[in-house]
Amino acid sequence: MQRRSVIRSLATSGAAAGGLVAASSFPKPAIAQQTYEWRMVTTWPKNFPGLGTGAELLAQMIGQMSDGRLQITVYGGGEIVPPFESMDAVESGTVEMGHGAPYYWKGKVNASQFLAAIPFGMNAQEMNAWYQYGGGQELADKVYAEMGAKFFPSGNTGVQMGGWFNKEMNSMADYDGLKMRIPGLGGEVVKAAGGNVVNLPGGEIPPALQSGAIDATEWVGPYNDLAFGLYKSARYYYYPGWHEPGTVLENFINLDAWNSLTPDLQAIVEQANRSVNQVVLSEFTARNNDSLNKLVNEHNVELRAFPDEVLAGLGGLAGEVMNDLASTDPLSREVMDSMLQFRQTATAWSEVSEEAFSHARGLDYQYATPTQG
Amino acid sequence: MQRRSVIRSLATSGAAAGGLVAASSFPKPAIAQQTYEWRMVTTWPKNFPGLGTGAELLAQMIGQMSDGRLQITVYGGGEIVPPFESMDAVESGTVEMGHGAPYYWKGKVNASQFLAAIPFGMNAQEMNAWYQYGGGQELADKVYAEMGAKFFPSGNTGVQMGGWFNKEMNSMADYDGLKMRIPGLGGEVVKAAGGNVVNLPGGEIPPALQSGAIDATEWVGPYNDLAFGLYKSARYYYYPGWHEPGTVLENFINLDAWNSLTPDLQAIVEQANRSVNQVVLSEFTARNNDSLNKLVNEHNVELRAFPDEVLAGLGGLAGEVMNDLASTDPLSREVMDSMLQFRQTATAWSEVSEEAFSHARGLDYQYATPTQG
Repeated sequence: MQRRSVIRSLATSGAAAGGLVAASSFPKPAIAQQTYEWRMVTTWPKNFPGLGTGAELLAQMIGQMSDGRLQITVYGGGEIVPPFESMDAVESGTVEMGHGAPYYWKGKVNASQFLAAIPFGMNAQEMNAWYQYGGGQELADKVYAEMGAKFFPSGNTGVQMGGWFNKEMNSMADYDGLKMRIPGLGGEVVKAAGGNVVNLPGGEIPPALQSGAIDATEWVGPYNDLAFGLYKSARYYYYPGWHEPGTVLENFINLDAWNSLTPDLQAIVEQANRSVNQVVLSEFTARNNDSLNKLVNEHNVELRAFPDEVLAGLGGLAGEVMNDLASTDPLSREVMDSMLQFRQTATAWSEVSEEAFSHARGLDYQYATPTQG
Repeated sequence: MQRRSVIRSLATSGAAAGGLVAASSFPKPAIAQQTYEWRMVTTWPKNFPGLGTGAELLAQMIGQMSDGRLQITVYGGGEIVPPFESMDAVESGTVEMGHGAPYYWKGKVNASQFLAAIPFGMNAQEMNAWYQYGGGQELADKVYAEMGAKFFPSGNTGVQMGGWFNKEMNSMADYDGLKMRIPGLGGEVVKAAGGNVVNLPGGEIPPALQSGAIDATEWVGPYNDLAFGLYKSARYYYYPGWHEPGTVLENFINLDAWNSLTPDLQAIVEQANRSVNQVVLSEFTARNNDSLNKLVNEHNVELRAFPDEVLAGLGGLAGEVMNDLASTDPLSREVMDSMLQFRQTATAWSEVSEEAFSHARGLDYQYATPTQG
C-alpha cells in the first residue's frame, strides 16, 4: 500500500461524509503507515524443537508488537533455499531475514564461527553479557556487514551435551582414529587430538552410527536428541559439551531491508530478538532434564562424564586451535581478543558467584520438599 | 487528545485541501491512536546502578517501540511516594506502573517473597526457565492479582554476594548472637541460626557497621557494593550469596491500566520486560568482576568463601524456614511446591551442563590468550 494513496482516500471519504467520520470506519494502523511483508528463511527444519520454534516465536512477537505492520513468514530449511544457502538469500535480497547459527557462515567470513561458541569458552549468561556489555554486538555487526547483513543473537541452547559414542572415552588415546561427526571448532579440536572428523547431514547420522562408519556424533542436548532418536544408534551419552558451552543462535537481516524500517520497527525487532534469546534458553533449561531422564530410564542410554584427563587434554588443544584460527585474518583476531579478554573476567566472577553457589547447593543437607500433589 | 476530534480535524483539513493532502502534514502516529502517558514509581534511588537504570531502560524501550504512544516517566524512590509504598500507589491507581523486587510486598501477600529468590534455590537462568516454562508467570500473576496488579520479571542480579562482615565466619557457632542486617528469607535463616537480625535503611548501614551496632550486612554484589562504599565500614566480603542466588526484579502494573492497553502495546510491554530482564543480568555479569578486583586490590577487602560446614548448616535451616513459611497459606504452598519441583529438575540438569562445564573449564591446561593491545 502506498502511503499517499491511502491518505488521499481517507481525506476524500472524510470530505464525502461532510467532515464527520466515525472512528470505527478507519482501519487503525494502516492509515498512514507502511506495512512490510517479509520472509524469513531458516537453517532448521520447520518447527524444529527450540530452534525452529524460536524463529516462529520471533516472527509472531514482531507481528504482535507492530500490530501487523511488520509481517514475517517463516520458511523451514529447503522450502525456499537449502539451509546453508540462507545467508546467500539474505545477502542478495531474495528474502529479508534469516535464522540460523553463526558458525554456518565461516566459509564466507572466518570470524563468524567464533560468534556462535568457542570450545571451553563462555556459557549462555556470559555470552549474553559479552554481546551486550563487552563489545560483542558491535563486533558481530562488523562481521555481518561483510555479508551485507545486520546481526542479532536470537536464542541460546545453553551448555550442550558432549555427544553420542559407541566406544568409551577413557583417555586422550581413545581419540586416536576416532571417527566422529563434529562440525566447527569442536571438530578442529577432535582432529588435533587424532580423530578422523567427518561431516554428515542429520539424516545420514543414524545409519552411519549403526554401520560403524562413524563411532560418534555430537548433536545438541537431551531435548533435541531424544526427538531425533539418536539413542537407537549409540550407547554412551557423554557430558559436558565442552565444544559448545552456550551456542548463540542468530537472526540476520539484509542491511537494505533493515535500514528501510522505521525506528520503532527497528526497536521492535531488536527487543523481540532479546526476548527470544531468553525464551529459547529457558525452554532448553526447562526441558532438557525430563528428556535426559527418559533417555536414561526408558531407553537405557549410559550417561558418562568425560574424565578430567580427557577434558584437560581437549582444553589445551582448543587453545592451540583457536590461536591458529584467530591468526587467519585481522577481524578474526579482533573478535577472539575481545572474547578471550571477556572470558578471563567472566571466569573469575563465575568462580565466586555461579560456581560457588552450585557448590553450596550441592552440599549434603536436608532441603525443603514439595508436598504430595 | 481525543480520537474523535483528531479524526474530525483530519477529515476537515483534507476537505479544505480539496481531497489532496501531503503525507508530511500528518503527525503520523497520533492520527487514530491513543497516546498513553504513564508514571512509573520505583523502589530504587533514581538511576541506581543496574536496578534504577533497568527501570529507565524499560521505559525507554517501550517509548521507542510504541513510537511514543506509550510514554512512561520514571520516578526514583521517594519522588512521588516512599519506596515501600510503590505497590500502594499502583494498587490505588495513583500511578500506573512500578519497579522493585517481589519480596518487598510480603506484608501484603506472603507468597510474593518466594517470587524474588529462595535461599539455596535457583540461579537466574533457572528462575527464568521456571517463569517461562515452569508455571511461574501464571502463579506470579495470581499472587499479584491480589494486589490489583499485573506482574513481569524485569531484571535479575544474578548470584549475589554473601555480605560484608566485621568478624570471621568459621562455623555455625559464629552465627550465635551475630548482629546482621539481612532482610527477607535470608534473614529468617540467619535468625534460625541464632543471629540477631535487624533491618535498616541503606543510609544507616555504614554508621551502624562502624559503631559495632551491627556486625554484618548483606547488600547486592560488587558492582553495587563498590558504589555504595561498604568497604569503608567492613573488613570481610563473603561469598556466595546463598540467600539470593538469582534475585528477580519486577515490573508491576495496575490491572485496569494494563487492561486498557491495546494488544500491540501489551505485547510491547511484555517483550520489553523480557529484554530488560536479560540486559540487567548482563550488566551485573559484565561489571561485577572489575568491581570485585577494585575492592580487593585497591580497597584491601578480604574476600572469603563461607566454609562448607557453614553452608550446609544454613542450607538445612533454609529448608526448615521455607517449609514453615510455605504453610502460612494455600497460595504460598502452591508457589513453593511449584518452585521446589522445578528446582529438583533444574539442579539435576545443571549438574551435567553448567556445573560440569565450569569444572572442565577450570581444569589445568594452557588456553588461548589475547594478544597484547
